[in-house]
Amino acid sequence: MRDILPADKARRERVLSVIRDRYRSHGFDEIETPALEEYSRLHAGIGGDNEKLAFNVLRRGLDADAIRGAADDQGALADLGLRYDLTVPLARFYASNRGQLPGVFRSIQIGPVWRAERPQKGRYRQFVQCDIDIIGDDSARAESELMVASLDAVDALGLEGATVRINDRRALDWMLDSFGFTAEERPGVLITIDKLDKIGPDGVATELRERGAATSAVDAFEEFLRRPQTMEYNPFGERQIRKALPDGAPDEIVGHLVGIGEAVAAGRGADDIPLVFDPFLVRGMGYYTGTIFELAHPSVPYSLGGGGRYDGMIGRFLGQQVAAVGFSLGFERLVDLVTLVGDAGDRAVVLIHDADVPVAELVSHKARLVASGARVRLERRTKNVKALLERSAADGYTEFATVSAGAAELELKPLS
Amino acid sequence: MRDILPADKARRERVLSVIRDRYRSHGFDEIETPALEEYSRLHAGIGGDNEKLAFNVLRRGLDADAIRGAADDQGALADLGLRYDLTVPLARFYASNRGQLPGVFRSIQIGPVWRAERPQKGRYRQFVQCDIDIIGDDSARAESELMVASLDAVDALGLEGATVRINDRRALDWMLDSFGFTAEERPGVLITIDKLDKIGPDGVATELRERGAATSAVDAFEEFLRRPQTMEYNPFGERQIRKALPDGAPDEIVGHLVGIGEAVAAGRGADDIPLVFDPFLVRGMGYYTGTIFELAHPSVPYSLGGGGRYDGMIGRFLGQQVAAVGFSLGFERLVDLVTLVGDAGDRAVVLIHDADVPVAELVSHKARLVASGARVRLERRTKNVKALLERSAADGYTEFATVSAGAAELELKPLS
Repeated sequence: MRDILPADKARRERVLSVIRDRYRSHGFDEIETPALEEYSRLHAGIGGDNEKLAFNVLRRGLDADAIRGAADDQGALADLGLRYDLTVPLARFYASNRGQLPGVFRSIQIGPVWRAERPQKGRYRQFVQCDIDIIGDDSARAESELMVASLDAVDALGLEGATVRINDRRALDWMLDSFGFTAEERPGVLITIDKLDKIGPDGVATELRERGAATSAVDAFEEFLRRPQTMEYNPFGERQIRKALPDGAPDEIVGHLVGIGEAVAAGRGADDIPLVFDPFLVRGMGYYTGTIFELAHPSVPYSLGGGGRYDGMIGRFLGQQVAAVGFSLGFERLVDLVTLVGDAGDRAVVLIHDADVPVAELVSHKARLVASGARVRLERRTKNVKALLERSAADGYTEFATVSAGAAELELKPLS
Repeated sequence: MRDILPADKARRERVLSVIRDRYRSHGFDEIETPALEEYSRLHAGIGGDNEKLAFNVLRRGLDADAIRGAADDQGALADLGLRYDLTVPLARFYASNRGQLPGVFRSIQIGPVWRAERPQKGRYRQFVQCDIDIIGDDSARAESELMVASLDAVDALGLEGATVRINDRRALDWMLDSFGFTAEERPGVLITIDKLDKIGPDGVATELRERGAATSAVDAFEEFLRRPQTMEYNPFGERQIRKALPDGAPDEIVGHLVGIGEAVAAGRGADDIPLVFDPFLVRGMGYYTGTIFELAHPSVPYSLGGGGRYDGMIGRFLGQQVAAVGFSLGFERLVDLVTLVGDAGDRAVVLIHDADVPVAELVSHKARLVASGARVRLERRTKNVKALLERSAADGYTEFATVSAGAAELELKPLS
């Protein structure tokens, strides 16, 4: 966990405000759920590996006997936990509040989540997630609205040129079936395929053999991986999707992907479809049931966000199937990339004053400048005025004046 | 704890953004600290009664033996806890990061805190606090900057006419001394005086006698409480402060209060000083060392925020005395009072479409409106269009159009 200092905090708030504004424009509505959820809900098996990373909150009012009794069942020590993602809380929220929400509900959630990660560079145990989700729409429109809104948001952050890598879990399942992998082998095979970028086709084939997968299936898959056209993803369209998959891919899956591409192009008002079909994109979470996607940008080798369909999860809280698809922007990564410094035209003035200026005089100078629309900070003169001016400039201040007792007018000078 | 639905969340974010903007204009810088702090720091005796309300986080990696061993010492079960206020974390933050902060540090902190309160109407176990603090300035300027900024913030929320009730813990101590209460009796006497509004002078005297305070002290104090001029607080100035206190109040305390009044008047650019001296204002927290104050508004009987000087607390983390004064706006109360509905001129359009409109067409209509600066939500036509329109209006949408397949132009109509 970390403290966030003023310059960082200002940048974070500006990035959030751009994202929030863009998502709201695209018809998404912000909601908020509590940081604490019931222990049992956080450990219901839908949070994947993150469940193990939950911070659990000690049940209140336990006496010594109750604690001794819970020694072999830690679940009895905790009744609440800190959320490790915003998806499990959203599913609970929707089940609780559905009657007050639109038929198709487009949510924005921006807030901290907590994971007991091992401390390492760039990983924090508290970090902000920034999710949009559409609940109640199983058509390609839902995916396309998520993508158009997210591309618009990263554009507005000055990161034009992003693309979306897309796949479908059902296409992965069908492909693995077609090579002869069994349904039982599938989860392990997917874990291996997820490493394709890093270990290449040889590494994937070797690891699958080590896993004990059927030789005929691994051979067929390895041959497929080595086809030249397999890695030729672009441009996005039906022909290319079919070329990148084994023959005979189901029309329903291909059609859904093609529909998303057309809708994203229409939403972007451009002929180019900013999508790349990647038949080996896996994404880790077990709850995905259909399309999965990641946001890529040419300036960085990692993704700036990702998401997918999880039509099964909300049903678990509601007792009926509900279509759902979500996208999570990598807020912490975006903050590092983005260099928003403040609104153009934002005036910020430092008033450097002698120790003997009467308080009322000083506060009155400040008030006049604030009323004129400036942001104003008072600083008592120190021996090293140069250092004071430099720190003020680093904090985003643009002008300064020195204030002596009895001065009627201030002479403002630019801070450079 | 509670879920926050879209209309509420939008109002909360707008209130926060007004407050944040006003506080930043007045030269305060926003920071953020983690929600979790070390257990030992949250239970160091500076959090007052709130320490007992902390949610404690189960230490990770405890085995059954360690749990049994901790049965008689629950502190060993928890290594972290959720913060119950923003003041303890600020003191820790300042001690950790002082080298990177201005000599006089003006902080904004906006974030959730958690208290294991008994569930009751209007009390939540997670709620937002909104604090500003000035560290490193022991002059009246600090109090006046807090007050001017906060009065400006509530003005900007449409709650003009607020005033600040002010007192000084040192004045209270001196007053109790002068009546003959002992230093040991003081905390109990203050708890009783804090009820003066509710139980009146008779009630206070009765309760003090029940507490076993010295008869002569209680008699003298009761006589003082019954003086007619004691309750005549206005207008604010040295004469009135002296009139409201027993004779011979120390010049230093009175001068500090008078200086705050003059500076607030200068900062407000008005002749009227929006301060009321209240010699019986107590405020609960034990860490206050000087001025204490509350924000009052004629429309409500409760305060909209409060604060005071706590010059001793930061020293505990730093090993040296540091001046500090803070003000906490009652965010949850303000949200209930304020009726900001959205920017004037904010366009929000609902597109009601037939089921057969192709996705790309629909998304393209939406994109054109978003590009024109509107907020746009898509809604599939339902049987009850009237209900759809009413819900949209309640959600802040201002216009609508119906969309059929192949339509080139949309006819926008006002939603009323």
